[in-house]
Amino acid sequence: MKANIMYEAGDVRVEDVPKPQLEESTDSVLKVVAACICGSDLHPYRHMHADEQGGGEPMGHEVIGRIEEMGSGVTDFKKGDLVVVPFAYGDNTCPYCQEGLQTSCVNGGFMSGCQAEYVRIPQAQGSMFKLPDEIGDDSPLLPSLLTISDVYGTGYHAAVMGGVNENTTVTVVGDGAVGLLAVLSAKKLGARKIILMGRHKERTDLGVEFGATDVVSERGDEGIAKVHELTNGEGTHVVLECVGLMPAYDMSVGVVRPGGVISRVGAPQYEEAGVGFASLFRHNITLTGGPAPTRAYMDELLPDILDGSLNPGRVFDVTMGIDDVPEGYRAMNDREALKVLVKP
Amino acid sequence: MKANIMYEAGDVRVEDVPKPQLEESTDSVLKVVAACICGSDLHPYRHMHADEQGGGEPMGHEVIGRIEEMGSGVTDFKKGDLVVVPFAYGDNTCPYCQEGLQTSCVNGGFMSGCQAEYVRIPQAQGSMFKLPDEIGDDSPLLPSLLTISDVYGTGYHAAVMGGVNENTTVTVVGDGAVGLLAVLSAKKLGARKIILMGRHKERTDLGVEFGATDVVSERGDEGIAKVHELTNGEGTHVVLECVGLMPAYDMSVGVVRPGGVISRVGAPQYEEAGVGFASLFRHNITLTGGPAPTRAYMDELLPDILDGSLNPGRVFDVTMGIDDVPEGYRAMNDREALKVLVKP
Repeated sequence: MKANIMYEAGDVRVEDVPKPQLEESTDSVLKVVAACICGSDLHPYRHMHADEQGGGEPMGHEVIGRIEEMGSGVTDFKKGDLVVVPFAYGDNTCPYCQEGLQTSCVNGGFMSGCQAEYVRIPQAQGSMFKLPDEIGDDSPLLPSLLTISDVYGTGYHAAVMGGVNENTTVTVVGDGAVGLLAVLSAKKLGARKIILMGRHKERTDLGVEFGATDVVSERGDEGIAKVHELTNGEGTHVVLECVGLMPAYDMSVGVVRPGGVISRVGAPQYEEAGVGFASLFRHNITLTGGPAPTRAYMDELLPDILDGSLNPGRVFDVTMGIDDVPEGYRAMNDREALKVLVKP
Repeated sequence: MKANIMYEAGDVRVEDVPKPQLEESTDSVLKVVAACICGSDLHPYRHMHADEQGGGEPMGHEVIGRIEEMGSGVTDFKKGDLVVVPFAYGDNTCPYCQEGLQTSCVNGGFMSGCQAEYVRIPQAQGSMFKLPDEIGDDSPLLPSLLTISDVYGTGYHAAVMGGVNENTTVTVVGDGAVGLLAVLSAKKLGARKIILMGRHKERTDLGVEFGATDVVSERGDEGIAKVHELTNGEGTHVVLECVGLMPAYDMSVGVVRPGGVISRVGAPQYEEAGVGFASLFRHNITLTGGPAPTRAYMDELLPDILDGSLNPGRVFDVTMGIDDVPEGYRAMNDREALKVLVKP
């Protein structure tokens, strides 16, 4: 079968590899119906060093697929079921999963290899989420349904961890797919003011359609000043940091209101950051967030998609076949594409 | 009048200085009935550099006193009233104060000069908290009442911000007065397991009386391993960091459970710290806390003290006169005293 493998920064190749097999009784194998390229895939695309042994990384962690095979421990599904899988697999039964923190599952891990024709799903019983039988492989709802695997669930996690509600003002840092869906999530949770910080007009325009009340295209100190202008000098109660780079962290510290919350879902590309008196401590700023347990939110996010009231799949602006994934990386990296849907 | 002034590390002097006067209509002047030395006063006592102009810092930020004078803007009190004042003064009317975050009051600041015979209170109307008329200057309740100015309110803030309740397990890092009162606070809020990390047996013994269920005297990796042993390998839901030094931060990261909260009230003596994938992000750890708005908790903490059911004043193990304060600093710094009460 065909799969996309990354060897080092800028080097993604479509290759013929063996079709994945069941390895554990808890596995399933899916025939991929829809996958995609994630903003977080661009971090290795920019910075990955070649493995000295010449090995590559099977790419892709978001997938909708039809069940091709199941191990004996996977009992609540039947072959041919259409399922969506969270980017972090897990058994959905351990104490952390029961608390809704599937990303810390004791039997969990992160998906890989979804930008392919078939993919193996570990802990399939707990990870797979069945989609309604009436959804076909060419359903116009597929892009939106795929977003609950990662980007929509991740934006929603940011908003939930930030404590967004009808009494909070919100700044969203970043106009990538997660940032835009953090806007949608903040709107869904009732935020009355949603300031989107982003520089790409076609993206922030979509953000406004998703519910942003203001757009700030300036960055750094200028951007911070602009948010203060929009908030009576106070900053916003909640900041949803959807980038993961140091300048985004510093900007978040700059725009958060005393007593407020910075909720991060952009995987941090740094380890140390300011947390002392000058940054977080003086005004009781809370720092929260992490990898989103998107499995926990699927039941909640599905209805609005099925009834058409929300359309998070609009973050996909390009659809490509499996052979075009390397070109998809290039297009996203050059910001020609916001997010690439892959249909094998 | 006599006041204690710090000139540089290790140099505190009792001096004759002018009695403070009303400077603003919102001020009051108190005759000090009880003050104390704070663990946070030891940071400058260890590290303060001499001012090139030769100026010193009037020390002390916790006080109970009788109103000697009031400006025209102070209307809800009468001369002679016994009041306790939070270590952070504020108007108690601005938006932050109304939300219970008096430490971010737009007209606020931090108290100083309480280790003296008289002290000026800015924003007196909002800062002063009247104690019942039956409390005399020699009431045995005075030590406990003084703790709501800072250390008890600060320990309580840690527990509140950490979300401590009957379903949470708690680690308290630090066996100073704030750490011990964080134990008391966690107990008051119903925590079922409270692990106190501290090395000083006479202090941790008091911690056990305050409600600690376990004591871990090891530090660093050994201490972390011990907490994991006590918690089925998971760590605790909440960590109350009551020290403010880097090793305490790292230990907090080591003992917090996935999805848990680190609540800091020890003023951080560092600015940068680990917050990335390896420390906070991977398992959705929340970092919270800051200077405690102790004014916000006074109504809540008073009744248990007045009826004798809680005795947070036990953290005071030495009482000294105003002339002995320099010796009090030395004793606390050398860990001969846990916390020094000052009775002018």
